[in-house]
Amino acid sequence: MNKEQMKQQTFELIDQLSPDETDDFLLLLEAMKRKNQKISSTYIGALLQAEGQDGDDEFIVTIPNTALIQNSLDIVHGGITATLADSAMGTLAHKLLPEHLAAVTSELKINYTAPGIGSFLTCKAKLIHKGTKTLLMESSIYREDGKLIAYSTATFFIIERKK
Amino acid sequence: MNKEQMKQQTFELIDQLSPDETDDFLLLLEAMKRKNQKISSTYIGALLQAEGQDGDDEFIVTIPNTALIQNSLDIVHGGITATLADSAMGTLAHKLLPEHLAAVTSELKINYTAPGIGSFLTCKAKLIHKGTKTLLMESSIYREDGKLIAYSTATFFIIERKK
Amino acid sequence: MNKEQMKQQTFELIDQLSPDETDDFLLLLEAMKRKNQKISSTYIGALLQAEGQDGDDEFIVTIPNTALIQNSLDIVHGGITATLADSAMGTLAHKLLPEHLAAVTSELKINYTAPGIGSFLTCKAKLIHKGTKTLLMESSIYREDGKLIAYSTATFFIIERKK
Amino acid sequence: MNKEQMKQQTFELIDQLSPDETDDFLLLLEAMKRKNQKISSTYIGALLQAEGQDGDDEFIVTIPNTALIQNSLDIVHGGITATLADSAMGTLAHKLLPEHLAAVTSELKINYTAPGIGSFLTCKAKLIHKGTKTLLMESSIYREDGKLIAYSTATFFIIERKK
Repeated sequence: MNKEQMKQQTFELIDQLSPDETDDFLLLLEAMKRKNQKISSTYIGALLQAEGQDGDDEFIVTIPNTALIQNSLDIVHGGITATLADSAMGTLAHKLLPEHLAAVTSELKINYTAPGIGSFLTCKAKLIHKGTKTLLMESSIYREDGKLIAYSTATFFIIERKK
Repeated sequence: MNKEQMKQQTFELIDQLSPDETDDFLLLLEAMKRKNQKISSTYIGALLQAEGQDGDDEFIVTIPNTALIQNSLDIVHGGITATLADSAMGTLAHKLLPEHLAAVTSELKINYTAPGIGSFLTCKAKLIHKGTKTLLMESSIYREDGKLIAYSTATFFIIERKK
Repeated sequence: MNKEQMKQQTFELIDQLSPDETDDFLLLLEAMKRKNQKISSTYIGALLQAEGQDGDDEFIVTIPNTALIQNSLDIVHGGITATLADSAMGTLAHKLLPEHLAAVTSELKINYTAPGIGSFLTCKAKLIHKGTKTLLMESSIYREDGKLIAYSTATFFIIERKK
Repeated sequence: MNKEQMKQQTFELIDQLSPDETDDFLLLLEAMKRKNQKISSTYIGALLQAEGQDGDDEFIVTIPNTALIQNSLDIVHGGITATLADSAMGTLAHKLLPEHLAAVTSELKINYTAPGIGSFLTCKAKLIHKGTKTLLMESSIYREDGKLIAYSTATFFIIERKK
């Protein structure tokens, strides 16, 4: 499909969207822009609109709760909560390692404690143990009202970064 | 933003896309269409393009491997693999329950065994144990070459479906 | 076997024991005494010589490291570390529940971070989340030198206590 | 304490035992014998009376259900079930590795599905994935009536065996 055809398709699609869907399509457009402008390095990061910040001995990631990440009950999909946890712990793992090393998830367990509702989710990732071959991390995910919605632990393998 | 403004924005965005990004944007457009036409009930389902089928004592879900679900190393993001596992096990859980009951994920553990590469992923979900209050499920995720990339177990709470 | 025969057997066994085994047999004798005198309600508790104490928002259990709980490498058996974690979290769960309710372990995950050596192990159990149907608990197990040897999370079902 | 004193203590203890406790003390004596005669290499193995056998692509361990391994409700302690699972998977791991390599448990998750009652427990351990650095194993634990009481997965690190 060439760009003119794509524009034609998009215009037809936009005409069919309901008001809610128009808002959601805007989220997709913004994700595409963030990826195109290299603000996000991945589509997942762009779609989640993840914002990270260093905390005190922890790494904190916040994402808005949008229709894009919800299940059919309008609650954040548990898989997305796991994706948020994995991303936050993985980012912290890389911050704790020297530049020539990388971390890959070996295993992750997540316990869900409350529905993911409200306007945003905040994930706080911490180190439990730093070994020579692995890192053990934990993360707590909270919703807007401060309630814990999930708790996760994960093991990351430490590997040599490919040059 | 009204629809004309949205069309204008999309027009400008499309002009800036690289050939690879053009393919990726087409995936976003198709996801939006599937959601608009109610082929998918969620954006996650639409973005993953999940296709389910009943197997012998199992439920099988296949998704194409696209740029949308990859991490910065072009490997399927572990969180998406967990999302696939959760969705496949959850769908099987609902198939095993009478209509007035629903299943919500209580906890999920996933072990990653190989990188998620190749053109598609296949997840096979099975029941381990059906209790009165919970279902224990397992799922194995394979890539195109047949290699196991992840194995997951999860507990689902059985709840009354809201009317 | 009557008691006289049992004494005869024990007599013969004691004569065959090496000095180390003599110490270990003394541990078995002491466990039997603790069970007989109802100091411990179970043989496992008697064999582990678990000592519990309330901490600040946590419950702490300490056990001596003896030959009884070691694997063939003279390191505490990982299953015993899991038993210690389960027991400490379970005891805390019961402390947090009213008298007519009990807690049974639904699932437990444990990550091992260092070998269990030294003269004792200390397990600190904490509550992560108290729901209406389940409790989510965590525990950290340390050895004599303060090093973390394992970290565990577990879900406990809340059930009506049988009368 | 010298052996004469130990005999004296044992005799006094035996005199105080109830009929049930006499049976239990016999189990402790037999465990001590198995360790002394090197039938078991560890006290845990001796106390559990574990019997292993090779199955078809699996390793099977059976233990009798005795008072020694029960909680205060006369149900097998969940920590012992985890110990059984860890031991069976660990033994299979060593069978799958060449002689110069050993396996140590890195993490273990266990889901409990039914109370451990009946006269014995059978654990069937299988390999899920053999990697270069780790082995991923699963085990299913059944009671005498064939009901699944627990399901466990565990990761084992492959290490060089010390000489």
